[in-house]
Amino acid sequence: MSFAKTPDPPYYAVIFTSTRTAVDEGYHAVAERMVELAAQQPGFLGVESTRGADGLGITVSYWSSLEAIAAWKAHGEHRVAQASGHKKWYEHFETRIARVERAYSGPG
Amino acid sequence: MSFAKTPDPPYYAVIFTSTRTAVDEGYHAVAERMVELAAQQPGFLGVESTRGADGLGITVSYWSSLEAIAAWKAHGEHRVAQASGHKKWYEHFETRIARVERAYSGPG
Repeated sequence: MSFAKTPDPPYYAVIFTSTRTAVDEGYHAVAERMVELAAQQPGFLGVESTRGADGLGITVSYWSSLEAIAAWKAHGEHRVAQASGHKKWYEHFETRIARVERAYSGPG
Repeated sequence: MSFAKTPDPPYYAVIFTSTRTAVDEGYHAVAERMVELAAQQPGFLGVESTRGADGLGITVSYWSSLEAIAAWKAHGEHRVAQASGHKKWYEHFETRIARVERAYSGPG
């Protein structure tokens, strides 16, 4: 994983913060597949994702519009993955949908 | 680190994604101090932060307004930390300021 090469704002971010259960059962393959599939969706701009040693994971995906986010949320294969996530993979998650208004990078 | 207990939207998020250099020189103490100091600022709502084994770090802090974010960015001790970050601790970073418009949590 690395930095998302996003365009100039405005665009949208989905901030997904999660802790996992001890259940693996296909988690990693599905997580990888979802990144691959998201990248094929209209309006996808990029994703940044990491999980620390303490178990907290943060994934931020970037999108051109709220409509693109809604379409991805409703995507059939993604819905199946979401249902598995809710049932067995995630202990807790927070999803926040935000409009990126300003961005800068560094150093230099 | 754990989940931020944010109020109902709207509020603001600062999404800070970074990779580190090999230089430590006080990094961890200052990073810890910045979280402690941020939490004392007006308008601070919470923070979620993690860094993965591959070195990518994501810290999302939540704020009540753009004014609160600007004040924290201009805070004297924070400015000193930012300068050290730019000079020696961060290989690259992206900062994005976003307005959280919708939020939900799960499972259940």
